Amino acid sequence: MGISSIRPGIRNEEGLASAGQVLRQVFGDRFQTGESIRAQHAHTTTWVPPQLPDGVVFIETAADVREIVRIATQHRVPLIPFGTGSSLEGQVNAPNGGFSLDFSRMNKVLEVNPDDLDCTVEPGVTREELNSHLRDTGLFFPIDPGANASIGGMTSTRASGTNAVRYGTMKDNVLALTVVTANGEEIRTARRARKSSAGYDLTRLFVGAEGSLGIITSVTLRLQGIPEQIAGGYCNFPTLRQACEAVIMTIQMGIPVARIELLNALQVKACNSYSGLNLPEQPSLFVEFHGSPDSVRLQSEAFGEIAAENGSSPFAWSANPEERARMWKARHNVYWSAKALRPGANAIATDVCVPISRLAECVAETEIDIAEHGLLAPIVGHAGDGNFHVSLVIDDKDPKEIAIAEAFIARLNKRALAMDGTCTGEHGIGQGKQEFLSDELGGSVDIMRQIKKSLDPLNIFNPGKIFALD
Amino acid sequence: MGISSIRPGIRNEEGLASAGQVLRQVFGDRFQTGESIRAQHAHTTTWVPPQLPDGVVFIETAADVREIVRIATQHRVPLIPFGTGSSLEGQVNAPNGGFSLDFSRMNKVLEVNPDDLDCTVEPGVTREELNSHLRDTGLFFPIDPGANASIGGMTSTRASGTNAVRYGTMKDNVLALTVVTANGEEIRTARRARKSSAGYDLTRLFVGAEGSLGIITSVTLRLQGIPEQIAGGYCNFPTLRQACEAVIMTIQMGIPVARIELLNALQVKACNSYSGLNLPEQPSLFVEFHGSPDSVRLQSEAFGEIAAENGSSPFAWSANPEERARMWKARHNVYWSAKALRPGANAIATDVCVPISRLAECVAETEIDIAEHGLLAPIVGHAGDGNFHVSLVIDDKDPKEIAIAEAFIARLNKRALAMDGTCTGEHGIGQGKQEFLSDELGGSVDIMRQIKKSLDPLNIFNPGKIFALD
Repeated sequence: MGISSIRPGIRNEEGLASAGQVLRQVFGDRFQTGESIRAQHAHTTTWVPPQLPDGVVFIETAADVREIVRIATQHRVPLIPFGTGSSLEGQVNAPNGGFSLDFSRMNKVLEVNPDDLDCTVEPGVTREELNSHLRDTGLFFPIDPGANASIGGMTSTRASGTNAVRYGTMKDNVLALTVVTANGEEIRTARRARKSSAGYDLTRLFVGAEGSLGIITSVTLRLQGIPEQIAGGYCNFPTLRQACEAVIMTIQMGIPVARIELLNALQVKACNSYSGLNLPEQPSLFVEFHGSPDSVRLQSEAFGEIAAENGSSPFAWSANPEERARMWKARHNVYWSAKALRPGANAIATDVCVPISRLAECVAETEIDIAEHGLLAPIVGHAGDGNFHVSLVIDDKDPKEIAIAEAFIARLNKRALAMDGTCTGEHGIGQGKQEFLSDELGGSVDIMRQIKKSLDPLNIFNPGKIFALD
Repeated sequence: MGISSIRPGIRNEEGLASAGQVLRQVFGDRFQTGESIRAQHAHTTTWVPPQLPDGVVFIETAADVREIVRIATQHRVPLIPFGTGSSLEGQVNAPNGGFSLDFSRMNKVLEVNPDDLDCTVEPGVTREELNSHLRDTGLFFPIDPGANASIGGMTSTRASGTNAVRYGTMKDNVLALTVVTANGEEIRTARRARKSSAGYDLTRLFVGAEGSLGIITSVTLRLQGIPEQIAGGYCNFPTLRQACEAVIMTIQMGIPVARIELLNALQVKACNSYSGLNLPEQPSLFVEFHGSPDSVRLQSEAFGEIAAENGSSPFAWSANPEERARMWKARHNVYWSAKALRPGANAIATDVCVPISRLAECVAETEIDIAEHGLLAPIVGHAGDGNFHVSLVIDDKDPKEIAIAEAFIARLNKRALAMDGTCTGEHGIGQGKQEFLSDELGGSVDIMRQIKKSLDPLNIFNPGKIFALD
């Protein structure tokens, strides 16, 4: 055994070689070491360079995971769980080498309990697969990050998305987990009751831990009834501040809006161009309401009044599924619409989240920053949560542009923290945001490190993510 | 220094004596050792015998807490945080001796942010004090356990109550905490943004930790807008099953009911007698709706139809505040109404929580168990969560009655666990439910122990609660 635990930047060459031999023996063709497969498993959407694992194991069962954790423990090598690879901050990279655990084949819906509005799935199930499976039950799983991510990955990054303002984030929608811990055994963090005061909340500890405390082998999720009616619409405002004021009032009035998305003028322009919309290029809100037809009508009317009070264009709402689909498709394609603003360029997505009273100020200052530095960067936000994204359209092969973008992101985070916000509302820390996490939470990061050392003393689970260990 | 860390059942007499001297020096009159004050701080509502602390410190500032943690660390003595003493499972007992930290004087509302629907309070603020303070803002804090508990205590036991079906539990309503950890420093677990993916969810780790990982010094809470209208009503059903079916359908239809409480026939009888109601002695639902007048009307009508479909008496709802107040006062007095069923007896409150599809079965089997063992024990439940309480009316001076009650509680927990439920929906583990926690979560309890040992290596924070350390 070359080393006693995995340290920053160090590859345990001896262990990696011997573990690879064992994995080959145990998993045969389910263990792959070809470069293209390894490269697929270290894909990042930022400029963080890909760091390839030494091999990829296609996981099929919890027993596979237990076995691999035993092997990794024996040989002191890292394990990096992999769902669909849609994480944004380098969560699937392998800075110390090691083995990627690909869960795409462990994707059964294990159980649906319609009366309890819950289900249990294997981690490789994607949210679209889950919702297809649920279609006949009248239920759906509401959490909706842009990508068709896996439930395991969404759990590990504490994902949210457009519906979170009404339905919460993964933290609110995971009821229980099974997890293989460092001793190679599988624990269950909670039962299926909707609430519990039984001991430490291990469920919430593993949600958002980015695979650094154990490997998730099943997820029990809360489900929602498919609303009888869904209606949506948009309106635009003379200024960002007015759009944000409308959002604050909507939340304060307790209108149970299902989605309320803020697009700045440049983002509207990008959507018009990429998605064939024809909206005035002004700060806009895309909104959606869920409920009975009566309730949706009441919500829409109440929102329309609030928007008008804040100077909006007439709020046109519709329960027509095609109109809605067109609008939300444009919303979901903002990343591609940003990229298309500059052919050949890449779009780097970054997010922060602030108390909603500071949203207008934070976005406005960010717009000025973007203008001052000559950046091309539309903004779109989950305004009801105070969470917004900047898509930095840059040539990510050009170190000068990367440096400008990095400096911009540092200022963006500093700005959000100064407003008592967080450096990430939904993307996670991964490799990209570690310094901002320290700025945000100070001594709490030491507590996180203590927990990590206690539950993963050899630093086998996704090392180098969230924080550096000494 | 007598011992290196605090072990089960062992009092560090030398350390307790020397720490007492230092506390007297530092805190003067704010440190009290009189027996009656110590007895007030070890009050339990069960038959768990009071275990008095060696002294009580009346905390006023976070600096006090930091100082006391330093003293406790130096002298190896336990610290037991104390809010109002309304916890139910021995959480404030001092099995190893030590010092009770009374937070009743650290009770300022530090900040209210109406636009963000949040506030930050010191831990000694009670929920009624908070809601009085908020009255002029149009906001309220919805979590509502029976007692007028402190926010610090509610945080530490992951409290919920009647409103949780709509507004969630403390886990969902605490945005951030400051906590003094074992090194005597104060950390902040999160910023004030409504969501975050920044690192491990330390907020949720401290919520429900029963003071065993650190001492909470402030709590940032989500608030809700006071509903424009509140309406409520009740109806009764021929059978428990039908009442539960109505609850399941209500939840499944997505009706955002604010409260939906199940009372069994004996509980209704007790309420009639104690609170001067005149309801048919049948399984009943007390419900409440929050929203705009139109929305409340729609919700009430929809619920009325569901109830009727399940064989209920006509559902009479009213927005009349006096009628509502009378009904909910009776609900909140169920503990006293149970006690009054047998003059001179005590009522022991215990709770479990099951998936709602199993609620009818679990309550019905429990009723049979109660009848078979000749117990007097009304049942009331937060039916929308699957959480119910049994009030065991016994002579808690009679060891035979205690033994019968203990055996009943063991069966009740076994039954709930067999239905994939939890041994406590909202009371916590404390001293009373440790064996059931093990039955419920198995190896997860070892993970909890590892976290405890890592964050509190000397076992100073509320030792002997949740689980035994070896």
